[in-house]
Amino acid sequence: MTVYNFSAGPAILPKSVLKKAQEELLDYQGSQLSVMEMSHRSSLYESIINEAEQRLRQLMAIPENYHVLFLQGGASLQFSMLPLNLAKGKKALYVNTGAWAKKAIEAAQAIDGVEVEVIASSKDENFNYVPKITRDMVDQDAAYLHITTNETIGGIAFNEIPDAGDVPIVADMSSNILSNDYKVTDFGVIYAGAQKNIGPSGLTVVIIRDDLLNDEPIFAPMLDYRIHAENKSMYNTPATYGIYIAKLVFEWLEEQGGVAGILAKNQEKAQLLYDAIDASDIFTSPVAKEDRSINNIPFVTGNDDWDKEFNKRALEAGMLNLKGHRSVGGMRASLYNAFPKEGVEALVALMQKFEEEKAGK
Amino acid sequence: MTVYNFSAGPAILPKSVLKKAQEELLDYQGSQLSVMEMSHRSSLYESIINEAEQRLRQLMAIPENYHVLFLQGGASLQFSMLPLNLAKGKKALYVNTGAWAKKAIEAAQAIDGVEVEVIASSKDENFNYVPKITRDMVDQDAAYLHITTNETIGGIAFNEIPDAGDVPIVADMSSNILSNDYKVTDFGVIYAGAQKNIGPSGLTVVIIRDDLLNDEPIFAPMLDYRIHAENKSMYNTPATYGIYIAKLVFEWLEEQGGVAGILAKNQEKAQLLYDAIDASDIFTSPVAKEDRSINNIPFVTGNDDWDKEFNKRALEAGMLNLKGHRSVGGMRASLYNAFPKEGVEALVALMQKFEEEKAGK
Repeated sequence: MTVYNFSAGPAILPKSVLKKAQEELLDYQGSQLSVMEMSHRSSLYESIINEAEQRLRQLMAIPENYHVLFLQGGASLQFSMLPLNLAKGKKALYVNTGAWAKKAIEAAQAIDGVEVEVIASSKDENFNYVPKITRDMVDQDAAYLHITTNETIGGIAFNEIPDAGDVPIVADMSSNILSNDYKVTDFGVIYAGAQKNIGPSGLTVVIIRDDLLNDEPIFAPMLDYRIHAENKSMYNTPATYGIYIAKLVFEWLEEQGGVAGILAKNQEKAQLLYDAIDASDIFTSPVAKEDRSINNIPFVTGNDDWDKEFNKRALEAGMLNLKGHRSVGGMRASLYNAFPKEGVEALVALMQKFEEEKAGK
Repeated sequence: MTVYNFSAGPAILPKSVLKKAQEELLDYQGSQLSVMEMSHRSSLYESIINEAEQRLRQLMAIPENYHVLFLQGGASLQFSMLPLNLAKGKKALYVNTGAWAKKAIEAAQAIDGVEVEVIASSKDENFNYVPKITRDMVDQDAAYLHITTNETIGGIAFNEIPDAGDVPIVADMSSNILSNDYKVTDFGVIYAGAQKNIGPSGLTVVIIRDDLLNDEPIFAPMLDYRIHAENKSMYNTPATYGIYIAKLVFEWLEEQGGVAGILAKNQEKAQLLYDAIDASDIFTSPVAKEDRSINNIPFVTGNDDWDKEFNKRALEAGMLNLKGHRSVGGMRASLYNAFPKEGVEALVALMQKFEEEKAGK
């Protein structure tokens, strides 16, 4: 039985990447070393991290005045690092679009000397849409405007980036980095846990515009963007193996036609599923059409027993991790870059079969 | 040519562990999933992290009143987390034994409201010995006494743990955890970056006694020991693949006879090299005999040209990363758990050959 992994993260990786990692696991390019065993200061490892950075720069068209940092601690540590580095003694603006935005907001509120203002929220509709942000809502004295470009739980995404004037937009892009064709120059800072579209968990990518690096040192060097930037992610030992896998994923993405190429494939996969949902009499999407995520697609029958039954049937058919998050219920299909179209087709076929059975009753 | 990897970290891993990881890379136990692709909330992954914890508890005889945490950010993040969680408004005592102790001290000094006192130092002799700590030196009101059990650069180790009375000893054990047979109950907190004796970089192991968990929440959840303990290392997505490799390393360690078994092998390897150094007329160890590390062994000829020549010859003979740290010079052999005795024998043979050549001149 073919298995399809709908996990929201850590998530599916390209098979060819895993095969390459497997081939090289005990002997990277004739060195007789596993990448896991390499000194991060060795020239061999330096060529890996440099290549990872260069490939990411090319894929995302990251200009020279942005630093690319390979850090640790996930988006969760960034939630605190961001206000600590950028907003001490200042105001920080947030848009509340759901579970992940809320975590970012709460972390900022916990930092002394940061004034947090939530300028818009979709809480009134259980976060099933992205609130519209217009320039007049953005206090031009703020340190930044924080958005979560894609909410993995709610299944909504910023399909357009707001105009914040001169205020830098800071984005948690954990679940749709390299999956959507955002322009880096629309942002001051982009951060992302690796475990959805980049590689294994334990690696965090931060892309930060040079002028936004902190002027004052942070009390903890590991929380200090400038220190990481000046040390080119080598202030301490980085997550060396995760960076290597990321490098392989970036190579694979180039073979897919880069971000434009993968975006077209992602849109096709998402459309297949949304079409099936929209055509269905029993499955519905809780999300506003114009704000639908192409990466995380929640859907429900509105009948708890049917949801449970469908999840059970999906699992039996080899569709893993399809169960929806407890706050939304039902099902959730996470369709990241490496998720194959065949998996969506299998899901849609099962939905149609299920519906036919239920219609007859 | 057989290659021997003397890297100080990230360092050599057991071949059998790498082979097992290679076999399972695309399909963990028939799941058709790579461990890198597994949701950290899946029962399959939970069995991996639970097994890693249980095996570590067994290997180190960790009592139930200690938490085992799998975190990120390396020892460097712990340098700041420790005083932040344990010593706010209190005094923290440190022993300065070299480069890594110094980093821990500086990080603590940067935390507001922590009074740092360095109660002993071996700086006077360029950190070539471990200062003696007696109980009367330890202020019994202090939050903790911090030691670095093994200095990877200086090559000295605490071969005995001091008596600190009721003050908990906190130890950076990054470079000799699971290599020495320390008693966990001699410590309040043990922390270690994984990349020497445990697994790949990007994983940090923290072992903390329950009564030392912070009472007050820390401003950043990712820096809060209690939050990590209460969430059993799952407050956010942990470094899932690193934990899996650690699990394999722990299995391998059991096959080596546990910590007692590997310690005997480590002592044998270290003795081989120290004997060669002590018998030599040109190679010397800069370290006081009773404080010698069995894990990191620096040695010099006292002649820069000879050091350079020896390093070049070693490299040509497949001995990688033997060059000494710039602050000590000469050579440094890092002999962690997975380093094979044959590598030490090859090194000793080269030293003897080199000495014979030089003696004739």
